[in-house]
Amino acid sequence: MADGNSVNWVYSFGAKGSDGDGAMRNLLGGKGANLAEMASLGLPVPPGFTITTEVCTLFYDNERKFPDGLEASVDAAMAKIEAQVDKKFGDVSNPLLVSVRSGGRASMPGMMDTVLNLGLNDETVIGLAKLSGDERFAYDSYRRFIQMYSDVVLGVDHHHFEEILDLYKEQKDYLLDTDLSAQDWLAVIDQYKKIVEKSLGKPFPQNVKDQLWGAITAVFASWRNERANTYRRLHHIPESWGTAVNVQAMVFGNMGDSSATGVAFTRDPSTGEKIWYGEFLINAQGEDVVAGIRTPQALTKKHRETMGETLPSLEEVMPESYAQLVAIFEKLEKHYRDMQDIEFTIQQGKLWMLQTRNGKRTAKAALKIAVDMCAEKLISEEEAVMRVDPASLDQLLHPSLDPDAPRDLLTRGLPASPGAASGEIVFNSDEAERLAKDGHKVILVRVETSPEDIHGMHAAEGIITARGGMTSHAAVVARGMGRPCVCGAGDVSIEKDGSAMSVGGRRLAKGEIITIDGAKGEIFAGAVKTIEPELSGDFSKIMQWADKKRRMKVRANAETPLDAKTARGFGAEGIGLCRTEHMFFDADRILAVREMILSEDKNGRKAALAKLLPMQRGDFVELFKVMSGLPVTVRLLDPPLHEFLPHTDEEIEAVAEASGMDGKALKARAHALQETNPMLGHRGCRLGISYPEIYEMQVRAIMEAACIVAEETGENVVPEIMIPLVAKRKELEILKIKIDAVCQQVMAERGLQVEYLVGTMIELPRAALTADDLAQRAEFFSFGTNDLTQTTFGLSRDDAGSFLPDYQRAGIFEKDPFVTMDIKGVGALVEIAAEKGRAVRPDIKLGICGEHGGDPASIDFVEGVGLDYVSCSPYRVPIARLAAAQAVLKKG
Amino acid sequence: MADGNSVNWVYSFGAKGSDGDGAMRNLLGGKGANLAEMASLGLPVPPGFTITTEVCTLFYDNERKFPDGLEASVDAAMAKIEAQVDKKFGDVSNPLLVSVRSGGRASMPGMMDTVLNLGLNDETVIGLAKLSGDERFAYDSYRRFIQMYSDVVLGVDHHHFEEILDLYKEQKDYLLDTDLSAQDWLAVIDQYKKIVEKSLGKPFPQNVKDQLWGAITAVFASWRNERANTYRRLHHIPESWGTAVNVQAMVFGNMGDSSATGVAFTRDPSTGEKIWYGEFLINAQGEDVVAGIRTPQALTKKHRETMGETLPSLEEVMPESYAQLVAIFEKLEKHYRDMQDIEFTIQQGKLWMLQTRNGKRTAKAALKIAVDMCAEKLISEEEAVMRVDPASLDQLLHPSLDPDAPRDLLTRGLPASPGAASGEIVFNSDEAERLAKDGHKVILVRVETSPEDIHGMHAAEGIITARGGMTSHAAVVARGMGRPCVCGAGDVSIEKDGSAMSVGGRRLAKGEIITIDGAKGEIFAGAVKTIEPELSGDFSKIMQWADKKRRMKVRANAETPLDAKTARGFGAEGIGLCRTEHMFFDADRILAVREMILSEDKNGRKAALAKLLPMQRGDFVELFKVMSGLPVTVRLLDPPLHEFLPHTDEEIEAVAEASGMDGKALKARAHALQETNPMLGHRGCRLGISYPEIYEMQVRAIMEAACIVAEETGENVVPEIMIPLVAKRKELEILKIKIDAVCQQVMAERGLQVEYLVGTMIELPRAALTADDLAQRAEFFSFGTNDLTQTTFGLSRDDAGSFLPDYQRAGIFEKDPFVTMDIKGVGALVEIAAEKGRAVRPDIKLGICGEHGGDPASIDFVEGVGLDYVSCSPYRVPIARLAAAQAVLKKG
Repeated sequence: MADGNSVNWVYSFGAKGSDGDGAMRNLLGGKGANLAEMASLGLPVPPGFTITTEVCTLFYDNERKFPDGLEASVDAAMAKIEAQVDKKFGDVSNPLLVSVRSGGRASMPGMMDTVLNLGLNDETVIGLAKLSGDERFAYDSYRRFIQMYSDVVLGVDHHHFEEILDLYKEQKDYLLDTDLSAQDWLAVIDQYKKIVEKSLGKPFPQNVKDQLWGAITAVFASWRNERANTYRRLHHIPESWGTAVNVQAMVFGNMGDSSATGVAFTRDPSTGEKIWYGEFLINAQGEDVVAGIRTPQALTKKHRETMGETLPSLEEVMPESYAQLVAIFEKLEKHYRDMQDIEFTIQQGKLWMLQTRNGKRTAKAALKIAVDMCAEKLISEEEAVMRVDPASLDQLLHPSLDPDAPRDLLTRGLPASPGAASGEIVFNSDEAERLAKDGHKVILVRVETSPEDIHGMHAAEGIITARGGMTSHAAVVARGMGRPCVCGAGDVSIEKDGSAMSVGGRRLAKGEIITIDGAKGEIFAGAVKTIEPELSGDFSKIMQWADKKRRMKVRANAETPLDAKTARGFGAEGIGLCRTEHMFFDADRILAVREMILSEDKNGRKAALAKLLPMQRGDFVELFKVMSGLPVTVRLLDPPLHEFLPHTDEEIEAVAEASGMDGKALKARAHALQETNPMLGHRGCRLGISYPEIYEMQVRAIMEAACIVAEETGENVVPEIMIPLVAKRKELEILKIKIDAVCQQVMAERGLQVEYLVGTMIELPRAALTADDLAQRAEFFSFGTNDLTQTTFGLSRDDAGSFLPDYQRAGIFEKDPFVTMDIKGVGALVEIAAEKGRAVRPDIKLGICGEHGGDPASIDFVEGVGLDYVSCSPYRVPIARLAAAQAVLKKG
Repeated sequence: MADGNSVNWVYSFGAKGSDGDGAMRNLLGGKGANLAEMASLGLPVPPGFTITTEVCTLFYDNERKFPDGLEASVDAAMAKIEAQVDKKFGDVSNPLLVSVRSGGRASMPGMMDTVLNLGLNDETVIGLAKLSGDERFAYDSYRRFIQMYSDVVLGVDHHHFEEILDLYKEQKDYLLDTDLSAQDWLAVIDQYKKIVEKSLGKPFPQNVKDQLWGAITAVFASWRNERANTYRRLHHIPESWGTAVNVQAMVFGNMGDSSATGVAFTRDPSTGEKIWYGEFLINAQGEDVVAGIRTPQALTKKHRETMGETLPSLEEVMPESYAQLVAIFEKLEKHYRDMQDIEFTIQQGKLWMLQTRNGKRTAKAALKIAVDMCAEKLISEEEAVMRVDPASLDQLLHPSLDPDAPRDLLTRGLPASPGAASGEIVFNSDEAERLAKDGHKVILVRVETSPEDIHGMHAAEGIITARGGMTSHAAVVARGMGRPCVCGAGDVSIEKDGSAMSVGGRRLAKGEIITIDGAKGEIFAGAVKTIEPELSGDFSKIMQWADKKRRMKVRANAETPLDAKTARGFGAEGIGLCRTEHMFFDADRILAVREMILSEDKNGRKAALAKLLPMQRGDFVELFKVMSGLPVTVRLLDPPLHEFLPHTDEEIEAVAEASGMDGKALKARAHALQETNPMLGHRGCRLGISYPEIYEMQVRAIMEAACIVAEETGENVVPEIMIPLVAKRKELEILKIKIDAVCQQVMAERGLQVEYLVGTMIELPRAALTADDLAQRAEFFSFGTNDLTQTTFGLSRDDAGSFLPDYQRAGIFEKDPFVTMDIKGVGALVEIAAEKGRAVRPDIKLGICGEHGGDPASIDFVEGVGLDYVSCSPYRVPIARLAAAQAVLKKG
């Protein structure tokens, strides 16, 4: 503590030592903590101080007023700066200038306000001119300050200033800012001050202390500006964290040609390669680099040469500063043990460090840096595993557009499922399947999709829908299949006869080629070159290390042999959810399924089920073979029957023909099956209770397949038969008796013993609350957190779209509960169920198979609950593997 | 313990003392326990023994085999009987005969099997003839035994025997059974034995021990016969309880004219009057009384005279036995301290008691008996309160059909809402309202009802629907309003033009008079005389006593002044749920409501809401006046908006005209508002978040009304503003700020301070699980257990109808969870929420306003949780008052 106050609101840093350090990120923000840390390391940091994030909280709690005593602390800290740089704030002959910057716990680049060159006024500017020996620099700095301060603190629109400057340049026939002399700037400054006075009714503040408090207030206030609020919502940063404010002595990169300013990374942030990577500008301030008016120069000679640039590199033009910088790079990497993102300024040949932080990087770079740093003994394997954001792997697992390929953007929609694909436009699922069978690559374009489109989505390279959000049917299914998908592309309008679509005034006929980028939600005309994912050595090394640490198994949600193969390729250790109903939608089966549903009696259903039995058995045989001995959890029929119903007269006719039933009666039955709230209706095990013959057929198919595969391959198939939507033990009891009977019968028929388990989904609050009851019959639980979220919130995923935007705007849902598990509600039920289940059956197998099974934050939570496995869509298996390992490591 | 075994399976009773007593009902069943008790009291009980209910459990757990050692115990107990009556089982000259009867913990009259006269065979019958000196009696007994035993134990259909007897009588030209002589019976017995041998391939068993074990086995087996299973399901009797079996020495009411058999109540079971009430038959066995072939005679002279009967009463014909019986009545009533239901037999002048139990009674009788016994100092006030079944009060609170009035039954439906009513047939709600305004009494007949029928249902005297179950819209709303209702009358078919309906081949035109009995689900042609409910002195006395004991307040769910008045008349202490949306359906408002919903922007909505404001304010003014200072909980708009949408083109046109909007756009908007699962969609507080102006209007109406009433009446109105469907604290936070702002503004405008509370429904599992969070903002919780049940079970009330019958057949739902709270699941959430809510806000007001608020079992549960009040439909208020008192008393 610098000044012995019981509460310390101001932390100084500089060559004389720092009050804070790098560990105090929560209090000082990232920037402030790292400035203190660098200063302590002996690096050249301009002296300054940080006003803590606590002050931000007090500021907002107290009607935007600062706490008593803050002013005195700031005065004292300013005095320390003055002492170190031997200048005085507001002094006419030897003025101290400072920068005032925000700096929160998490980086929010560009979202909050900054003021540079503060301390200039009509008098100190003269002192600065004399002191620097550069009148033009001084006036240039002053006009920059007036413009920035007026914009940020006083709320005078910056367009006014740009207009004045443009007009001035026009009058003088100047092209560049550098064409303006000191006298020119003086003239401009005069106009600037006039516009400020005109706008505000009072002159631009000349008192430097007023300037300082104005800037501090403005930066704190910018924590809650529109941009910052939006950014925080998108990046899940709590408002309560607040920002710190850093006040620091100015150093100038724009004091002539021995001055420069730049940014650098200690490794290449896009590839991870261990090279110094950065850019700088001579005679410029930081904002010029960001503004992109002048072309920045490369840091190293090698980089300059690779890029074919002619402007000299820093290595060449300022070799001493460069050497000093490189030494600092090495020191910082060793100190922080991570790749650093650095800002520096060279003032008349002297290097100053303005910022360092762990650098953002692509997924590919993250993998390489982690693996390399481990090889360099900078970090351990565990740390390497922790360094890669599991969610970022998504980028790597799908094809992507070649960044250099030319493209013709048609429109944008929602980035519903990552990956890129090109193909012929097709507007219906049957056609998509037919064309795909003939070897065509197709993109399926629909207004929206329904379960009947599954085969078409599977056949397609990618999917576009005109309607629907990130959790629409198309989005969920496409992510599950790993198909790129753009949803809710409202611009796309399909012509009624299905021959073409129009997008933003252009017409594209069926069969024309388009390309989609599902990661960005973009749709392009024609083919755009794509790059296949490269699961490099770094990827597999990190995965290996992760697997060593991981406790939970990772399974995949998959029904088709293709999906199962993909999943195994990604390292899945079994199937956690095989949704048998997905097998019902194939064109050659839907007829029998409809016949079954629409039968008015048991015999009719049994006849139809007899047709389905060999098909389902065949599916399971294939699936069990692919999984060769790994566990496979098969969920018995779950969705409401009417999802399978025929809608058009032709479809009804087809069923009538196949079943010999009356078309009118069929229609009536289809109508009778409609439900007000199908989600809460006749589905799941309720179907099994009402129509036991359906589950009997399915169980028979599973067990016959298990016997066949066991005989053919000699491998041990252990099917896990899962009963959906159980609310009461009695449901489980009744169905388990029937299931066991069929299993015994099949094994007797085949003369073979096959191990199998019978368990239940936990997807209703009641199931979770009475899990002790259920565990008396269930050999395993699988948490179906999609439905559990719907029932716990009383919120239908299909219908939430209409008000979810309102909810996100209002900050009610910081995260989409269908993506990341709601720990307080749904998570509490998962914990209760796990605890109660284990109390009755200590070795009960516990897993999760909702969408949350592939979400890192949710995986972290269920590791804490001690589940045995997570199950997710095949393309998320690597993400889950890494997240599961990190969850173990985080527990310590 | 009689025989010192560690486990006692057989309990003897008789004049020599009893092993068991009346408290052992669970082990010995009701009959066995009371026989033992009566014997101990020194009453004349034929000796016998009871095989316990534990044996029943063992029997079923062990593949219907009896435990080792049972046989020896039975033999020993039989020997005790033999010793007491000085006869021997199977002895040719002095045979003991026994009855074998079931007897469970709860009475299940006629559901299980009984065998009488056991111990007769071709030889012992001769002994019986000699011993009794009555050959005809002996052979009559033997043929009765063969018939009964063959039917019950051997499974020979009783029609065979009836056929033989009928044929024999025909041949002999006999009219009555009494016409048959001993020789005739011998001839019949011969034929009986032949048909048994033909049916079974072996002769009728002559070994009396085989007979005994056959009967014991059959009675235990009858515990799980079809009838018993159904009865248990309907009366919520657990299968695990099992039945006991009573074996008892036979006594004979059919040994000539000094013998008789009868049943009696110690008070009149339909009025409760303190008179000996019963019937008997001379020279008959118990089954003859039940069979109803002969007209039974009255017990007392007075009763005989009242009934105008000529056959003498027992008092007159057997004065000694009568005097003995009266003494026993008094002894038993004093002993059991309740009205007794008694079976007795007089064998040749000697009185025997065969059964006593607490007698079933009507609600009216229950009230009178309880009040009288309290006056007689037999029971305390507390016991009197406990003696009345709260649910039975329902009978008393509604008009009922005059039991003596002639009637013309048209058809039956479900007894959806009790009460009787007559009126003109009307098929649409607008017409019902119009006619009612003109003073007509109408019965609304609909295929089914929707929220738009509310005004018609209100205007009608009673409601009939052709479709829908006990929890259909019509049923729930009718119960709420106290309107008699018959639902799901499938026979009723309304003609398309709405001019008439047909019922079972008869056509009834609009305007014709019909009558319904909602308690029985019956529909009659013409007017049937009804009796108004008479809330007698007994009723109000019991209610007074109950109120003294009651801890929880009882409120009503009501919106209209009429309902509120009814509720106050029944003793409601406030309104626990005012569903504001019910106020939106009136013909004069629905247009403005639709205009509001279909507006595409805030201004359109505000314009429509401005029209609604004065109407809602007027409603609240009336309501607050009726409730004069009692608390009123007003729930802000809850249902999905599309419930209010226009369906027909004319309706859309009307909205278009009123709002100046385009018809086409209106249709599109109506379509856009459709939801897949409206129950889980854009409703409740989600509407308040999306369209804050709706709640603002409602809150303004509430507060303006509160101010007006406070000024006009000087009474303190404390509105409790309730936010529905809250899942997250943030929802509550946002809405509470807006609500408080409107309240402050209204009070400022009116220059008046009015106390008000803001609270939330707890109707989602997440709300219950995070109640600590919610309690930080909510000043009260009201448990909306209807929706909480739906979400906890994942079960829509609207859709459950299609599989609920399967579920009840399968025994999955022993009670309908929408009627009686599911304690394990929903109850657990209520407990969690109450506990978490109180942890944060110790004085938080807690209530329940779902249908369960009027269900005695649920009330008992929430008393345990410690809620502050229950709220139910006005007609259930007395039930809730009584149930709440009983809940306190049960806790002890």
